[in-house]
Amino acid sequence: MSITVYWGSGSPFSWTVLLALETKGQGYESRLLQMSQGEHKTPEFLALNPRGKVPVLVDGSQVISESLAILTWLEAQYPEPPLFGRTAVEKAAVMQVVSELVSYVEAPIMAISRTTFFKPWDADSQAAISESVAAAKPELQRLDTRLQSMPWLAGQVLSVADLRLYPLLQLLWRAIGAADRKGGLPVMHELDRDNFPELDRWARQIEALHGYNRTYPPHWRA
Amino acid sequence: MSITVYWGSGSPFSWTVLLALETKGQGYESRLLQMSQGEHKTPEFLALNPRGKVPVLVDGSQVISESLAILTWLEAQYPEPPLFGRTAVEKAAVMQVVSELVSYVEAPIMAISRTTFFKPWDADSQAAISESVAAAKPELQRLDTRLQSMPWLAGQVLSVADLRLYPLLQLLWRAIGAADRKGGLPVMHELDRDNFPELDRWARQIEALHGYNRTYPPHWRA
Repeated sequence: MSITVYWGSGSPFSWTVLLALETKGQGYESRLLQMSQGEHKTPEFLALNPRGKVPVLVDGSQVISESLAILTWLEAQYPEPPLFGRTAVEKAAVMQVVSELVSYVEAPIMAISRTTFFKPWDADSQAAISESVAAAKPELQRLDTRLQSMPWLAGQVLSVADLRLYPLLQLLWRAIGAADRKGGLPVMHELDRDNFPELDRWARQIEALHGYNRTYPPHWRA
Repeated sequence: MSITVYWGSGSPFSWTVLLALETKGQGYESRLLQMSQGEHKTPEFLALNPRGKVPVLVDGSQVISESLAILTWLEAQYPEPPLFGRTAVEKAAVMQVVSELVSYVEAPIMAISRTTFFKPWDADSQAAISESVAAAKPELQRLDTRLQSMPWLAGQVLSVADLRLYPLLQLLWRAIGAADRKGGLPVMHELDRDNFPELDRWARQIEALHGYNRTYPPHWRA
């Protein structure tokens, strides 16, 4: 077994990579770093990624960071099943959805999550979260509408677009639950999974993938 | 001629696409939209991209927005010369640099540019710009160091990574000049082109590409 993955529990970018490895049926050695103990800032890990960020994939002599670069490597080395599309039309569709996720969906969801988990639960935080909810909501509606006419985000087959979005949505939905336990912020519930029936259906498809359970963040089970 | 590009003068994402078309030697019909007159918000353009953003590429029956998706389409349809790498190692290297540009370089440069060109030149704006300069500076240093050992950002040949960075840096350098004309902010000059000798050399390589002059933002010449 030549693939080793360094990852963090609950890191959405790590989760995307684990889902890709499972989808491609590639075995891998799992190195779960305890971020709370600074295991991503040790000299050993910084030698792999000077930015000290997960995920990092080591495959033979190749060391790659940044999840989209890792997926690109996996696609080139282990082409089946393809996750970036087979034809030019499919490839462009996958990358268009991925780009839209990166440009418009990721930032508000990451902001909601970081504020909920790491900031004081005060009026400033709640105002910031409300603003991010307003940005995220039309994006989730757009994705939900898209999924009315196709089973997966970029068309008829699972792709990198799906693997990129799913962990972000899980993080969002977990943040809503965490906020409730701090007293809650009603507007966050506009982003509940129940409000997006096609995203819910689509998420259940991901959750039914072979190997899904191995990718689930271990500290979320606790 | 079947390719049409809708673009905006000075939009870095548009410029990247034009450079890719010139590099691949593909002729195209140029549709320069006057953003100041709202030409990106007309019903005709919104039918091509509901977000009302440039660039958009139309190639036969295919309509693509998001610059990385457009480049993906061009690579699949017009593979020579490759801009995403030929081998798995090259492909991963290109995507790693592109991802780092998107994650760490783009945001501070876009913030500097937007604040300089579109916000009042007051203490708040200058504080925000100073913060972005502090974020951008180590990134430019890192890129400059990288270029000490290779001619292009992802190795021995021009790639999407180069075409993505160059317009961002031009926008940054233009913002520094614009700020000077408003009274200036000394810290911005830490990002001067002269301070990064390898980036300067690399930029001159881009400026020597065949067709470069056709891609230069027309309103910058005025």
